[in-house]
Amino acid sequence: MAAAPLSPLAPKSYADLTPIEGVRFAVAEAGIRYSGRTDVMLAVMDKGTQAAGVFTRSKCPSAAVDWCRARLPGGAARALVVNSGNANAFTGKSGAQATRQTADIAARALAISKNQVFLASTGVIGEPLEANKFDAVLAGMAREAAPDAMLEAARAIMTTDTYPKVATARATIGGVEVTINGMAKGAGMIAPDMATMLSFLFTDAPIAAPALQSMLAKAVQASFNCITIDSDTSTSDTLMLFATGAAARRGAPAIAAANDRRLADFRRALNEVTLDLAHQVVRDGEGCRKFVEIRVEGAADAKAAKKIALSIANSPLVKTAIAGEDANWGRVVAAVGKAGEQADRDRLSIWFGEVRVARKGERDPAYEEARVAAIMREQKIALRVDVGVGEGSAVVWTCDLTKDYVAINGDYRS
Amino acid sequence: MAAAPLSPLAPKSYADLTPIEGVRFAVAEAGIRYSGRTDVMLAVMDKGTQAAGVFTRSKCPSAAVDWCRARLPGGAARALVVNSGNANAFTGKSGAQATRQTADIAARALAISKNQVFLASTGVIGEPLEANKFDAVLAGMAREAAPDAMLEAARAIMTTDTYPKVATARATIGGVEVTINGMAKGAGMIAPDMATMLSFLFTDAPIAAPALQSMLAKAVQASFNCITIDSDTSTSDTLMLFATGAAARRGAPAIAAANDRRLADFRRALNEVTLDLAHQVVRDGEGCRKFVEIRVEGAADAKAAKKIALSIANSPLVKTAIAGEDANWGRVVAAVGKAGEQADRDRLSIWFGEVRVARKGERDPAYEEARVAAIMREQKIALRVDVGVGEGSAVVWTCDLTKDYVAINGDYRS
Repeated sequence: MAAAPLSPLAPKSYADLTPIEGVRFAVAEAGIRYSGRTDVMLAVMDKGTQAAGVFTRSKCPSAAVDWCRARLPGGAARALVVNSGNANAFTGKSGAQATRQTADIAARALAISKNQVFLASTGVIGEPLEANKFDAVLAGMAREAAPDAMLEAARAIMTTDTYPKVATARATIGGVEVTINGMAKGAGMIAPDMATMLSFLFTDAPIAAPALQSMLAKAVQASFNCITIDSDTSTSDTLMLFATGAAARRGAPAIAAANDRRLADFRRALNEVTLDLAHQVVRDGEGCRKFVEIRVEGAADAKAAKKIALSIANSPLVKTAIAGEDANWGRVVAAVGKAGEQADRDRLSIWFGEVRVARKGERDPAYEEARVAAIMREQKIALRVDVGVGEGSAVVWTCDLTKDYVAINGDYRS
Repeated sequence: MAAAPLSPLAPKSYADLTPIEGVRFAVAEAGIRYSGRTDVMLAVMDKGTQAAGVFTRSKCPSAAVDWCRARLPGGAARALVVNSGNANAFTGKSGAQATRQTADIAARALAISKNQVFLASTGVIGEPLEANKFDAVLAGMAREAAPDAMLEAARAIMTTDTYPKVATARATIGGVEVTINGMAKGAGMIAPDMATMLSFLFTDAPIAAPALQSMLAKAVQASFNCITIDSDTSTSDTLMLFATGAAARRGAPAIAAANDRRLADFRRALNEVTLDLAHQVVRDGEGCRKFVEIRVEGAADAKAAKKIALSIANSPLVKTAIAGEDANWGRVVAAVGKAGEQADRDRLSIWFGEVRVARKGERDPAYEEARVAAIMREQKIALRVDVGVGEGSAVVWTCDLTKDYVAINGDYRS
């Protein structure tokens, strides 16, 4: 498959990443599947680094997800190895063997415990991962790893992504500035023959693993769990947060508990970075041309609101209408109706941008086609629905469904 | 929009419909939205006709669905009026007013009670339905209605359908032959600006409404509720079964209870007709080129099996892979995983046609690309998954997702 052109929704520039003290990155061409591009990244973390992680809810997770889940309770991390080109998913016993072997190679190269090596793989499903290919590159990567190579690392884990995704934010803990840098990849929940949304965050804040875990689990609810490209969930979705604690040397207080008030600003920054990365994933949605925000209000509660919002966001008919720049609110009504949550048809209101197109279950008498047409031509479309029964609200983000999505995923052989 | 070419999966010929004693059909051009084609059909039923119905589970149903639901408990029907071009959905109070007016016009034309007139509408959502247009045609239709006009009736209710859908089956009750004729329309769960799957069945069997209702509700579970084109549910889905009882004059026994053993053959025939029509709807799926049967076995129970089967059937990535004639079983695994039901990754097996492509959670060592490629080129694709945990099984049907689906529904204005 030829490389896809840059998404029209790509950010105009990459975030400027201040290196995180205690983390170094390296990339290499291991020849897993691609040639002429990097396909492995290594992150080396200083001793004492704490780790948190959130993984796919798939009942058929990849071998790397199994590996990370088993090691996460330790809370300690020294290395992260991520490859593109092969997802090591649905690879049976050889898959589990490949994760052990990869961790062994990394542990030897860095003289650390293999149980502090975390792994992620993205790419083809069902093909054995030849972990011995890491043997040729990991020792060199361990030597060359450098603090300022994070953007290159983000590039090495791309599959059908059209751009590397990075984000950064600063926060203060006890008056001391700390940094969070993040990277992500993902362009369909599962791209052609490829799998996965992966995201890795790094900070120099001195925060213990249980507190990191609690904050990360909340941050994901309002970011990665609020986006959908095609409703398909990967076998390998992985989000990890590593805290080196290096800022303690500059006077940042060590924090053990998630409810410590000194974490307020860090939490804000963490939410900011995860949301930024989540939006970047949507903006690289396969074949997309529109970034769509869907806000549901007036639902029975927040959970109902989110279910309705995702029902709209996953509706092929809503998504194709937006691709066609058609403010087809009838399809929005249908998507609200099928969500199964309480909604009052006769009090339902729908807005595209600031224009109310329907109110009290009917077309808005003041509706002006020309105004809506102008809104639908924009790259960012805001869709708002008031379902008229309560106070619950939610926001989710998606992209449109175009012929290019089908072309990218159809891999027409005929 | 230009008329779409006939679906490549269309049946080679229409079922030969023996007229049902006690039912007459008429069609007309009321000019609801289209010109140069029929857009209203009337079915006139003899006195004593019993009715059963199953309707959309949408929380935002159409005005016609509201009307039918309110009249169905009476169990008696004398007329059915169906229009295409306008769904009378999300039309507020004027929508309810339009249903009353339509029923009034039909009741006057036929000198019957308006509470024995059933209604369905399909087409644009959110536009007021001008029911006075029926005034000009229904009296004439009442005069002209004829037993042999059912295929024309099926044509009048089409929206984006590329062919009228009819089916027939015979059964014996107490040694007397009875007939079931059915029609359906639907090509996307919601077609462009259109709504709905509609289906109407007619029989001369003398069966009371409660028994009809029980059998119809079961028949729908194994037919219309097992198909999906794009996972979108209409505001107007309507399936009704009318029994004139005329076969009683030929000696068929009147049946009151659904558990009457003399109904066994009728039940078989009813299931046959509903499944035939459901398959015809899938075969007219917007933009489709492949008819796909998905069989899930080895699930915890039948409900879990159906949920997994629908998760596969609704996966855009599975559907685009099938469009591309790619036996991409990795996407099938991902769809099984996201269904949320119990599955044993390491005991999972997947077949395309008779070829097992994966077993025990890995690619089948005996897998031959060429054999599978030949299967994927067929118009009918059978996909089978054993999830390896129990005895539950289910079958659902869908079609592939092509660029034409996006084109048909995208209504590109730019």
